[in-house]
Amino acid sequence: MIFERIKSEGLAHNSYFISSGNEAAVIDPRRDIDIYTDIARRNCTSIKYIFETHRNEDYVIGSTELKAVTGAAICHGKGLDFKYGDISVKEGDTFEVGSLMFRSLETPGHTPESITYVLYEKSAPNYPFMAFTGDVLFIGSVGRTDLWKDKETASGILYDSIMNKVLPLGDSVIVCPAHGAGSVCGPGISSREQSTVGYEKATNPYLKLSREEFVAKKVAEPLDVPYYFKRMEAYNKDGPPVTGGPPACAPMGPEEFKSLSSEGIIIDTRMPHDYAAHIAGSYNIWLKGMALFPGWIVDHVKPIYLVTGRDDDVFEAVKYLYRIGLENVKGYLCGGFTEWVEKGYDIEYVGLLSVDSLAVMLGKGDVGLLDVRSDIEWNTGHIREARHIFVGELESRIGEVPKEKPIACLCSTGRRASLGSSILKRSGIGSVYTVLGSMKAWMNKDYPVVNEKLMERKGK
Amino acid sequence: MIFERIKSEGLAHNSYFISSGNEAAVIDPRRDIDIYTDIARRNCTSIKYIFETHRNEDYVIGSTELKAVTGAAICHGKGLDFKYGDISVKEGDTFEVGSLMFRSLETPGHTPESITYVLYEKSAPNYPFMAFTGDVLFIGSVGRTDLWKDKETASGILYDSIMNKVLPLGDSVIVCPAHGAGSVCGPGISSREQSTVGYEKATNPYLKLSREEFVAKKVAEPLDVPYYFKRMEAYNKDGPPVTGGPPACAPMGPEEFKSLSSEGIIIDTRMPHDYAAHIAGSYNIWLKGMALFPGWIVDHVKPIYLVTGRDDDVFEAVKYLYRIGLENVKGYLCGGFTEWVEKGYDIEYVGLLSVDSLAVMLGKGDVGLLDVRSDIEWNTGHIREARHIFVGELESRIGEVPKEKPIACLCSTGRRASLGSSILKRSGIGSVYTVLGSMKAWMNKDYPVVNEKLMERKGK
Amino acid sequence: MIFERIKSEGLAHNSYFISSGNEAAVIDPRRDIDIYTDIARRNCTSIKYIFETHRNEDYVIGSTELKAVTGAAICHGKGLDFKYGDISVKEGDTFEVGSLMFRSLETPGHTPESITYVLYEKSAPNYPFMAFTGDVLFIGSVGRTDLWKDKETASGILYDSIMNKVLPLGDSVIVCPAHGAGSVCGPGISSREQSTVGYEKATNPYLKLSREEFVAKKVAEPLDVPYYFKRMEAYNKDGPPVTGGPPACAPMGPEEFKSLSSEGIIIDTRMPHDYAAHIAGSYNIWLKGMALFPGWIVDHVKPIYLVTGRDDDVFEAVKYLYRIGLENVKGYLCGGFTEWVEKGYDIEYVGLLSVDSLAVMLGKGDVGLLDVRSDIEWNTGHIREARHIFVGELESRIGEVPKEKPIACLCSTGRRASLGSSILKRSGIGSVYTVLGSMKAWMNKDYPVVNEKLMERKGK
Amino acid sequence: MIFERIKSEGLAHNSYFISSGNEAAVIDPRRDIDIYTDIARRNCTSIKYIFETHRNEDYVIGSTELKAVTGAAICHGKGLDFKYGDISVKEGDTFEVGSLMFRSLETPGHTPESITYVLYEKSAPNYPFMAFTGDVLFIGSVGRTDLWKDKETASGILYDSIMNKVLPLGDSVIVCPAHGAGSVCGPGISSREQSTVGYEKATNPYLKLSREEFVAKKVAEPLDVPYYFKRMEAYNKDGPPVTGGPPACAPMGPEEFKSLSSEGIIIDTRMPHDYAAHIAGSYNIWLKGMALFPGWIVDHVKPIYLVTGRDDDVFEAVKYLYRIGLENVKGYLCGGFTEWVEKGYDIEYVGLLSVDSLAVMLGKGDVGLLDVRSDIEWNTGHIREARHIFVGELESRIGEVPKEKPIACLCSTGRRASLGSSILKRSGIGSVYTVLGSMKAWMNKDYPVVNEKLMERKGK
Repeated sequence: MIFERIKSEGLAHNSYFISSGNEAAVIDPRRDIDIYTDIARRNCTSIKYIFETHRNEDYVIGSTELKAVTGAAICHGKGLDFKYGDISVKEGDTFEVGSLMFRSLETPGHTPESITYVLYEKSAPNYPFMAFTGDVLFIGSVGRTDLWKDKETASGILYDSIMNKVLPLGDSVIVCPAHGAGSVCGPGISSREQSTVGYEKATNPYLKLSREEFVAKKVAEPLDVPYYFKRMEAYNKDGPPVTGGPPACAPMGPEEFKSLSSEGIIIDTRMPHDYAAHIAGSYNIWLKGMALFPGWIVDHVKPIYLVTGRDDDVFEAVKYLYRIGLENVKGYLCGGFTEWVEKGYDIEYVGLLSVDSLAVMLGKGDVGLLDVRSDIEWNTGHIREARHIFVGELESRIGEVPKEKPIACLCSTGRRASLGSSILKRSGIGSVYTVLGSMKAWMNKDYPVVNEKLMERKGK
Repeated sequence: MIFERIKSEGLAHNSYFISSGNEAAVIDPRRDIDIYTDIARRNCTSIKYIFETHRNEDYVIGSTELKAVTGAAICHGKGLDFKYGDISVKEGDTFEVGSLMFRSLETPGHTPESITYVLYEKSAPNYPFMAFTGDVLFIGSVGRTDLWKDKETASGILYDSIMNKVLPLGDSVIVCPAHGAGSVCGPGISSREQSTVGYEKATNPYLKLSREEFVAKKVAEPLDVPYYFKRMEAYNKDGPPVTGGPPACAPMGPEEFKSLSSEGIIIDTRMPHDYAAHIAGSYNIWLKGMALFPGWIVDHVKPIYLVTGRDDDVFEAVKYLYRIGLENVKGYLCGGFTEWVEKGYDIEYVGLLSVDSLAVMLGKGDVGLLDVRSDIEWNTGHIREARHIFVGELESRIGEVPKEKPIACLCSTGRRASLGSSILKRSGIGSVYTVLGSMKAWMNKDYPVVNEKLMERKGK
Repeated sequence: MIFERIKSEGLAHNSYFISSGNEAAVIDPRRDIDIYTDIARRNCTSIKYIFETHRNEDYVIGSTELKAVTGAAICHGKGLDFKYGDISVKEGDTFEVGSLMFRSLETPGHTPESITYVLYEKSAPNYPFMAFTGDVLFIGSVGRTDLWKDKETASGILYDSIMNKVLPLGDSVIVCPAHGAGSVCGPGISSREQSTVGYEKATNPYLKLSREEFVAKKVAEPLDVPYYFKRMEAYNKDGPPVTGGPPACAPMGPEEFKSLSSEGIIIDTRMPHDYAAHIAGSYNIWLKGMALFPGWIVDHVKPIYLVTGRDDDVFEAVKYLYRIGLENVKGYLCGGFTEWVEKGYDIEYVGLLSVDSLAVMLGKGDVGLLDVRSDIEWNTGHIREARHIFVGELESRIGEVPKEKPIACLCSTGRRASLGSSILKRSGIGSVYTVLGSMKAWMNKDYPVVNEKLMERKGK
Repeated sequence: MIFERIKSEGLAHNSYFISSGNEAAVIDPRRDIDIYTDIARRNCTSIKYIFETHRNEDYVIGSTELKAVTGAAICHGKGLDFKYGDISVKEGDTFEVGSLMFRSLETPGHTPESITYVLYEKSAPNYPFMAFTGDVLFIGSVGRTDLWKDKETASGILYDSIMNKVLPLGDSVIVCPAHGAGSVCGPGISSREQSTVGYEKATNPYLKLSREEFVAKKVAEPLDVPYYFKRMEAYNKDGPPVTGGPPACAPMGPEEFKSLSSEGIIIDTRMPHDYAAHIAGSYNIWLKGMALFPGWIVDHVKPIYLVTGRDDDVFEAVKYLYRIGLENVKGYLCGGFTEWVEKGYDIEYVGLLSVDSLAVMLGKGDVGLLDVRSDIEWNTGHIREARHIFVGELESRIGEVPKEKPIACLCSTGRRASLGSSILKRSGIGSVYTVLGSMKAWMNKDYPVVNEKLMERKGK
């Protein structure tokens, strides 16, 4: 038996390759599928089944790509009217893969048709071994319930799926969910990647609640819905087009880049501290952030042009964009920002602040402060002087940003803050700072934080 | 938390890297330690502890190498008088690694001082999460008990360790043993790499036995003791010398190779079907087999010279030799066997047989048949006409080989058979065949097999 | 300025990438074009021109592939009616690439439209710097003249092109031809890769001849015309189809391979000494030989199935086939010959002989000897007992092979001999040997050789 | 024959690997020698000779390292009293390497004992083929003559060596010098990498001068002598110690880095535009610049600590330092500057200016301008308001920097300017700017430049 967890950074997405003898199954493949066919080839196995645990909303499912090159059968839950795929899975269906067997459980709640695939050895058919729980049960958390019907009803359904289907599999079953820490598909997922039903029962806070408490907690969770989710949902219901891989992205000299990018969107993938000088009008999304944040910002129609710290970063950025259905990437500035400045082309600036400098400036009233973290993060504590607009909404709420003073952007570490800064600059605000290290540095230096009820938590 | 299982092929050895925050621990490191320092560096962590689950006998422990470059503390059980290391571990000792904690259990049986390291999250100190069971509990098997005292006593001690220490950790605990399928450290280890205490309780045949049955089964197990075990045991008790990595192995032209190798041992690492023509006097050990079989054959004093299918294979072969304490590798035939034949140098031959040809020749009485598999394999069924001498003992029992007819060597797949053939040729036997595909092919073609009680199992 | 020679092994083909500033040219690109676009991208340059020195006959030109992804202009000589391309080049045309300039010379002889591209720095327009001589002037040799009109006329034309166009460029000009040692496009090309016009004048034997002597020597040269040349010539005149890269080649288990390959051609790419046991009916072409010899043997219509020494060799083999227009590669035996023998499937054998054994067998009259080298090689000296049929013609002249005795195949090193052996086996001859090391080993051991006039050269 | 030019970036150093059959020679190896042994191994050759064209002064010669692992003989000119090596080479000595032969010419001028090694094929002993000219004749330039005796005498000697020894080899000889464009060992070396004696005679400006003119030109050349040259000269005369490769460089968390680096020197290898925020007290030397500029700045005794844009850059930086004898590299900030800012540690700033902003500020008199290019570059034209101090002397001449206004640093592209800015900050100057794109951008935007005689060259 070969078992591989394939992690897609940024999306914090897990897919799985399981094989036995010459047969294999892949669970929730991502769109750039080379990694699955490579593992299969290295082990001389054929992929027989592609299992989708549910209609995903945060990335383009790779099932159609993978089927196109392997002929594997696509399986998804019967509870949704998918326009593609081969097998409509219902409770209790079984699928043989070499000496292994998958058995399906209907576990709605996150979506109406969610399936948990339970793995058995055929030699021990009464003992479930692993459970691929999709977005039903995460390690330390559970799936979000705000995407298909009213949260109260959906949350109750999810509770029932977990309590009546997953947990009864038994303490010894290894839990393999579709997302890890950092995913937008569930709040507070643990950074631990290994777990069992028993260990989740012991430590997952959601599993200690009554149905009523569980529903109340889920209803109260303030989760953001990225702009691009609707498109992913449609894609993944109708079947994404087969493209044969990520698009090419042309190397461009500075003249060509300058001329063409003026009609599109420029994304600069450097780190916040490298974005002090940059091309005017660009967005700043750090490389790993390209896995998710373009989905908040970028229209899938407009052509995208990339500025990267290293030329090779382009491949990674293009792959990330491809995974979330953004294929209209036209070119990149070959040689990077250096090529731009050596032409003498215009440069725009964002100031960089340490938290010490921020504290001094706030004390003097020299700067306004904008916290662009999510609602959940904001509620855990924030700087007293800050105003809060989530970075994903900043562009549409730009009118709420106070413009009388220079303004500093802040998030948890500075990455999203710099995206915020770039959005502010694009809106025409002249004097903008990014707070390097942001809340992480602020708290490391023991500066005061208030929680949502305006009680000071600690201070100097 | 970062968790990585590092598999060493051939030895079927598992080591583990676990980190949290900036701290890491490594469990049972192998001797070529770059893989651990690479993971640590990529994740900006420092290795704090090196845990040895027990005094290993099948490879040279990498603790001293790893300590030399990281300064980590070496921990092993107090039950043996180790001549190196930093911490003598006893029942209940705890070790913090970031937000994690390891707690030790004394679990003798395989060796007197075996320790099981149990992993907890500090936030959930009552719930064990993973258990690093060393050679105590394997997936689908248990450790061998023939290496330190009488088998009966040792087996009982092992039973008690498993039943009273490991299983009580609870069904939900993930089991991480020191070996996987194919190891000589336990019979019949499963090829599944994931398990839990609960799943082992349900499926591991050893865990369903009474103490008496368990001891009886263990006592009856006919396990081979490779020649090199004694040396490994001494090495691992006294602390292996720090060498800074595998030895260099000089590329040699055919003249130089011919001249120098005559004073040493030649090992040809090609597959059995590629060994039809070869350098006279060479041993044939297929590349992955280099991880283990040189330990049966090769004196650690004699210089070793390699003939490989590709020049790059040399690095892999040298690494395997290094892991089992064979460092006296002097050179390899650069360009491979082609260089040899183009010089017109002497060639020796081994015949290659399909199982169909073997059947015909056996039918006519034209060939003798030597089965070089282990006792356990032989006992599961063999070809009626075969004589049995385990390949590891063939050199010392060469006098028992009948010489009146040409002789064909056979094992499970042909690999060890070819090693056997090369040993027969070295002993001066003229007409030697290797049965390609061996028992696997024989059974795929439905030829008859007898079991140890001489009952036919099936036939054409 | 960036200058890279791209060597394609087996074909002994040289292509060149030259850039200056942001512009580049490629000369005689091969069909798998990633290497050119990679160099261009790494250096932030755009490929502006694709220069074909002539209509090639030994591989598929990559111009159309390269144009498809770069938009570069394809340039070839006006002397042929090409059905594709952008610029018909005539004497004296100039092409600017950054600070460099190419100027064309019409240099017919090898083909009617051959062009030599001469490189200048624009800052020194009177001093030619390099000459890309295509198949006109090689290092130590000149192009073949048997492919487009009568050899006598063509040879005279070639002589004039060299003497009146190339040599007058001056001693200091660096010579960059389209082929190196081992190419079928010219006899006796030097293994030295660097030369100048002056050094060729001093050392190239063809350049010391009068026109009459030159023509006589060329006319007398017995060159083989591989079967696939005609197809390449048509391809390269009409413009090869754009495929976007080499075909995929599916990994197959032994059952599938056995079933499907029975309808196609099996090529086993292992070395001669590894081909002792193999699948019946397969051709044996060593990996590097795949660059050329399938063009002699394989119909481009029949599906091809591969058996390789390592799975990764498949990519190399498929690339080689693609370069010579063989795209109908369907699959490979994943895991190699081992998988086959473990199924117990049929095995066919070829015997392997050292030259010592050959000498003994010849002495006893136990074996016939077949020399499958080219006419030129045969004429330089051969074994007295040998019969000569060039390997490229063996299949069509199989009736000439004497069948009364076992037969041994021989070439220069054993590689083509093993191809010959596989052809003999396919024809139903039962007892076939490959002479390992072949003439190289024979001469290293000082066995006697006769030259074409039957004079003994040397002997024991 | 195998010929490989190995380029060492930054130093613009060329070494060469030449082999024939199983023998090879290396010319002027660099200190990290893996590349030579790798090529040798891939081609199954043994390195027989190490030829030093002269006692180098700009890097540590790799001869002793290479000899230690290959046993090759080190050859250098008899004109210096080397304390290591095997063969003292004098005029006309010959060295056989397979079918090739090297013959030595004594060509003093750059150093007293410079040797040119001329390559012949043994089959054509009257026709030199290539010349390894060391620092005697470069492509488009000649060696510097200011390092061993009065420039006038040395320049005359160099002229004689070139005219009487190198040029008489003949136009057709390929020239292979020890340095390419960008080297400090000769002014104005061409970026073209291929040349011949004939082409140099036609285009190299130095070769068109009379002896008198040549000497006058050489005497007038204002060349900088990096601080570290003296140490290299001693090293390369006495024989550098064998270290077995570049030093390890420990990954450090921010706390450890902060604590330890305070006792040493911090070098930040990011690009100028990424250095806007950085650790106070660090030097900024862009990654490729690490090949040379630490030799101007860094004492070889003080421990060095690195901040890099990517963790993998550390290996490259350490290799560069090793090549110029700086081995005291202790550690790097693992995870880069992000780790520092997330701790909230102190940040220092350098402003970044476009040339447009610079022009505006100069116009208003708001900023002082410091040009840190070399004398030769300065003399070709500069900005009127600029003051000139070469970056290599800036630290020692810091008192000359005007401090009444903010100060902007400028060089050719911004890289050395940023090193200058970091030196200014270290000296306590508060407000410092780096001009991005520097003179290259300034001239691309057609801003006015004055030449050394204060004549305006062109303007808006």
